[in-house]
Amino acid sequence: MNVAIVGATGYGGLQLVNLLKKNKNYKITFLGGNKSAGSKWNDLFPFIKLDNDPLIEEISTKQIAERSEIVILGLPNGLSSTITPELINNGNKVIDLSADYRYKSLDKWKEVYFKEASTYKRSDDNLCLESIYGIPEIFNKEIKKSRIIACPGCYPTSSLIPLIPFLSQGIIESEGIIIDSKSGISGGGRNPKEHLLFAEAGESISAYGLLNHRHKSEIEQILGSISGLNVQLQFTPHLIPIVRGMFSTIYGRLNDPGLTSEDCKILLENYYRNFPNIKILPVGTYPSSKWVTNTNDVYISVNVDNSSGRIILLSTIDNLLKGQAGQAIQNLNLIAGHRMNDGLDLIAHFP
Amino acid sequence: MNVAIVGATGYGGLQLVNLLKKNKNYKITFLGGNKSAGSKWNDLFPFIKLDNDPLIEEISTKQIAERSEIVILGLPNGLSSTITPELINNGNKVIDLSADYRYKSLDKWKEVYFKEASTYKRSDDNLCLESIYGIPEIFNKEIKKSRIIACPGCYPTSSLIPLIPFLSQGIIESEGIIIDSKSGISGGGRNPKEHLLFAEAGESISAYGLLNHRHKSEIEQILGSISGLNVQLQFTPHLIPIVRGMFSTIYGRLNDPGLTSEDCKILLENYYRNFPNIKILPVGTYPSSKWVTNTNDVYISVNVDNSSGRIILLSTIDNLLKGQAGQAIQNLNLIAGHRMNDGLDLIAHFP
Amino acid sequence: MNVAIVGATGYGGLQLVNLLKKNKNYKITFLGGNKSAGSKWNDLFPFIKLDNDPLIEEISTKQIAERSEIVILGLPNGLSSTITPELINNGNKVIDLSADYRYKSLDKWKEVYFKEASTYKRSDDNLCLESIYGIPEIFNKEIKKSRIIACPGCYPTSSLIPLIPFLSQGIIESEGIIIDSKSGISGGGRNPKEHLLFAEAGESISAYGLLNHRHKSEIEQILGSISGLNVQLQFTPHLIPIVRGMFSTIYGRLNDPGLTSEDCKILLENYYRNFPNIKILPVGTYPSSKWVTNTNDVYISVNVDNSSGRIILLSTIDNLLKGQAGQAIQNLNLIAGHRMNDGLDLIAHFP
Amino acid sequence: MNVAIVGATGYGGLQLVNLLKKNKNYKITFLGGNKSAGSKWNDLFPFIKLDNDPLIEEISTKQIAERSEIVILGLPNGLSSTITPELINNGNKVIDLSADYRYKSLDKWKEVYFKEASTYKRSDDNLCLESIYGIPEIFNKEIKKSRIIACPGCYPTSSLIPLIPFLSQGIIESEGIIIDSKSGISGGGRNPKEHLLFAEAGESISAYGLLNHRHKSEIEQILGSISGLNVQLQFTPHLIPIVRGMFSTIYGRLNDPGLTSEDCKILLENYYRNFPNIKILPVGTYPSSKWVTNTNDVYISVNVDNSSGRIILLSTIDNLLKGQAGQAIQNLNLIAGHRMNDGLDLIAHFP
Repeated sequence: MNVAIVGATGYGGLQLVNLLKKNKNYKITFLGGNKSAGSKWNDLFPFIKLDNDPLIEEISTKQIAERSEIVILGLPNGLSSTITPELINNGNKVIDLSADYRYKSLDKWKEVYFKEASTYKRSDDNLCLESIYGIPEIFNKEIKKSRIIACPGCYPTSSLIPLIPFLSQGIIESEGIIIDSKSGISGGGRNPKEHLLFAEAGESISAYGLLNHRHKSEIEQILGSISGLNVQLQFTPHLIPIVRGMFSTIYGRLNDPGLTSEDCKILLENYYRNFPNIKILPVGTYPSSKWVTNTNDVYISVNVDNSSGRIILLSTIDNLLKGQAGQAIQNLNLIAGHRMNDGLDLIAHFP
Repeated sequence: MNVAIVGATGYGGLQLVNLLKKNKNYKITFLGGNKSAGSKWNDLFPFIKLDNDPLIEEISTKQIAERSEIVILGLPNGLSSTITPELINNGNKVIDLSADYRYKSLDKWKEVYFKEASTYKRSDDNLCLESIYGIPEIFNKEIKKSRIIACPGCYPTSSLIPLIPFLSQGIIESEGIIIDSKSGISGGGRNPKEHLLFAEAGESISAYGLLNHRHKSEIEQILGSISGLNVQLQFTPHLIPIVRGMFSTIYGRLNDPGLTSEDCKILLENYYRNFPNIKILPVGTYPSSKWVTNTNDVYISVNVDNSSGRIILLSTIDNLLKGQAGQAIQNLNLIAGHRMNDGLDLIAHFP
Repeated sequence: MNVAIVGATGYGGLQLVNLLKKNKNYKITFLGGNKSAGSKWNDLFPFIKLDNDPLIEEISTKQIAERSEIVILGLPNGLSSTITPELINNGNKVIDLSADYRYKSLDKWKEVYFKEASTYKRSDDNLCLESIYGIPEIFNKEIKKSRIIACPGCYPTSSLIPLIPFLSQGIIESEGIIIDSKSGISGGGRNPKEHLLFAEAGESISAYGLLNHRHKSEIEQILGSISGLNVQLQFTPHLIPIVRGMFSTIYGRLNDPGLTSEDCKILLENYYRNFPNIKILPVGTYPSSKWVTNTNDVYISVNVDNSSGRIILLSTIDNLLKGQAGQAIQNLNLIAGHRMNDGLDLIAHFP
Repeated sequence: MNVAIVGATGYGGLQLVNLLKKNKNYKITFLGGNKSAGSKWNDLFPFIKLDNDPLIEEISTKQIAERSEIVILGLPNGLSSTITPELINNGNKVIDLSADYRYKSLDKWKEVYFKEASTYKRSDDNLCLESIYGIPEIFNKEIKKSRIIACPGCYPTSSLIPLIPFLSQGIIESEGIIIDSKSGISGGGRNPKEHLLFAEAGESISAYGLLNHRHKSEIEQILGSISGLNVQLQFTPHLIPIVRGMFSTIYGRLNDPGLTSEDCKILLENYYRNFPNIKILPVGTYPSSKWVTNTNDVYISVNVDNSSGRIILLSTIDNLLKGQAGQAIQNLNLIAGHRMNDGLDLIAHFP
């Protein structure tokens, strides 16, 4: 199966190249870049050598269609929508890492991504409707048959995987959920910005995007459609000085306050029993983000405070793998007819 | 005024020595250590030189009483209670950094610190009752007249200062408060432990002490006594890879959902108008822990989500200064009759 | 092939378990620990799960001999020598990560490791003589036939691999070599010590062991035996705040000042042409330690200053893999008759 | 004394504002910026509040001359020379943090800074000649009388202070000196660049600028002029993941191999006996960069290897203070007639 990677020199693209280059199921046939178009890959990335040392090329939907069946897009929000319709028309399947096809309603996208919407005039409502939200452990059947997959953001991935089993079964209240997330700095991308400098982000923690971070509505949409309820939550992202990793501490209220931590742990285990990369921890064991670094795993710990009827979920992922490129490869595997986790049996080095 | 510092070689003790050595109001007349007793100070700490290069001494209440009026104790929980009664009897005033005198009820202490209680048999109920909780911006009048001050933990300090104005005035609900705190690694102390190693704590974030961390009951006690209500909360501490700093994200529910972020900001400004080290940020400005490193300041940001009736408070402190030794010096100043923030006008170096 | 790992819960042991558990060539049949003996593996390391969840056991040479052919020892210096003779007598082959068999002369060991020598009385001169120094790219023939391999320290590995080609061919002077090395904190081991705490080692760099660090004599011995010359060097180790990684900057003087950087690069490429894990960089490309993290690779950059006749070599490795456990597995492969780098085709995740 | 700070929002400028705002000797009367001109200071830097909340202004030599006597320039190399002649003509004294006036010979500057020289056409030879190199402990007499001070780079400062006493007295050889320096990331400035991102620089060490880093010629010039000899050295800078700090490991060869570490330590103490901010450590005590963070101090350790005739000097500074803004304030004090270290008695917080 021939795969094009567009936006290959960002952090997501680098993970894709790194993982696919050893994967016998796929061949990388197009590497699309922007500022780096015209450079030889191995000159820029001597530490991720490719045997054929390909050129990084200007994005050309024609070239992509000639050489590839599936395209993975690692482009900024908005930009993705400028080539996706054509790619689909040309017969390519598209796995998109941006937010452009995460909302069923294009109007909702325009509301949340109003800044991008003012630059990129879109009318691809039908693709928004057709697109499948790419959490492969939840939507695997739909993904297999789809032409366009919208990969979730890293924050939604780390929040939805622990929450969906509880909300889809009406176990926790749909209002008042609090998601307090902490992200490594690579989540801010490879484009240099002041707040991502080592000198600014090192030895520091800060919160940002309070009340209305874009990922809040993304999480609410998915939880709402799965539960059939109006989900309302608080979402607070923080930047912490780790290169990779994401940790979400999620607070909810049980509908049935008699449930124990052990009950909830068993419920999670059952829900994800076919997905060995989602690991439910024994009650009282709390994960460290370091356990998942460089893997596609999710660790979840569930804790019930019976005195208050609260449930506290801890989840941790590698923001660039399960939170981005690793999940894209799971989706790629499903589309291409391979086992979901092929090529993702990665080692959790410690420390 | 002559001051004894007991536990001088821990991180709290080091801050005290470092700050008091330049302070004209005080003279350090006793440095008590444990493992390091018998060593010359400057040999151990060539980077915090003392002009007279004192000996670090075995703890002796007699020696302390002969040479000092006030004692600051930086000892492990439980151990503090083995010498405090005698120090008080000898006429010393005591500023205690441990948890031993933070609870009005000794029985409550025995319940929360059951492990220490099994080692140290205590019957100093009266000192627990007499002791004043050392947040100087709240309890300054009581502190000035007291013989024994129990300095708060770093987590309670960073939680109580933003919460007290709202709970004491009945503005937020007393149930369902969530405190999600993130601490730098120096909060774990200088005694080597595996989880505090750079190799373990670096490039990682983890939660610990879920549901029943000891500081939860400390926060609930103070909020309860100030508000006259039964306060129930969730408190989740996290370890993040910064040397110094603490950041708390606090979620509450407004009793009056019509209040705005601006209203709440003004309320905080009024409450703390006499305390320049407590800095209330403009609405929409979020603090970074780096802003307070090496200072005794607190930054607070308040954010109201009117769609959900939620209030989100962000607060950040230096865990070793406002969270420990800096606050102790504020209390020392009050006891000794000086201005509260004398000697604490510290520079916030950036970055 | 059945393998025993002794000292399995240290950082070296953890890498060995982590890498061997997926390796079809080997079966881990004994996990020896000390403080953790009696614990189930998966309880201590839920993030490095073993399917059979073995018990960590007290060290027993009898048990090891019954169940394993090869033993990898990750024990403190000195302790290793207390069981190695018996293991060898029992017919086991031994791959030792300690310094105990790195010197051909036991007297030299006693001189350099005088502290350990005063605790452990040794008379196993013959094993010292028999032992092969485990740099597999240099001594592969000898290693294949040996019963006992002394794996090098991480500093010697990162220094010897770039230096040996030049010294063995008389290209640089044997006197006046300067090795300025920088190590990640995990090199200090998992046993908690004050200077390895995040609060002490974070946001800091320091030098230690000046003039006579133990690894100096180890490097001099190997360079001397390979070149037939009396090698004299300066070696200065530094601790820098990274979890994993080692970077050595090596300064030498060319015997023939007419050689160029390009000449020297080609010389290195030729020397290591059969060893794809040793990567020689183009002239003018400088490595980052991040390129090798979690891999068994070595990157070398060579730079000649023709105005001064100096050569500057940069080399970087992962201190726990090529600097310790990865190299042990290369040696294991050679002893067991497998390809040297089997099971070591690890991904260099970036960033 | 009225002071203008130009380039006030870079890391050097921020230190200057932060230190001068509490200094009674000076009044900041002009804050010049570039991208941030037009902004209110306190909006950009709520954590470094200025009482009068000044505007950041476009650079205007006229405005500066009207309001200030002394100007501190924190501008990029080359740009500084476009306004300095006019400032001097207007009667201002200039303390320049750039490299523009560090070379006595403008031609040498054009050779080393050829890139800048191609953009900025300079003919201010006379100012280059007139300018005094701003190491106040060495050139204090000349500085006091000067109109223009060229503050050294951070690498030269950390190298020259330990080396000058030895070279000026002919104690070490003038050829073959090796300076292996390690810098914190803030040394790269506040302008966002890829290699300064936390995701790239975190958990990593790398070397750069080998053989011909610009600071090499700066160090050679000063050592040469002080010793009267032709000084030739190797200088290798490294980037390490600390926000602030610089550590240099310097290798030289003694002319008289009979000197001991103790002799050399006494020599350093005598040389700097009037400068309490230069601290010579006891033999066998090695500094950590953390000891100087946020201070204007220098720690030096000297070690002689009598078996090889080598001397190894360790020196550490805060790259933004003694390496930049702190040293500028020392020069400012000298020019303004104050004590050299006024306003620089900063606390070395630990850890």
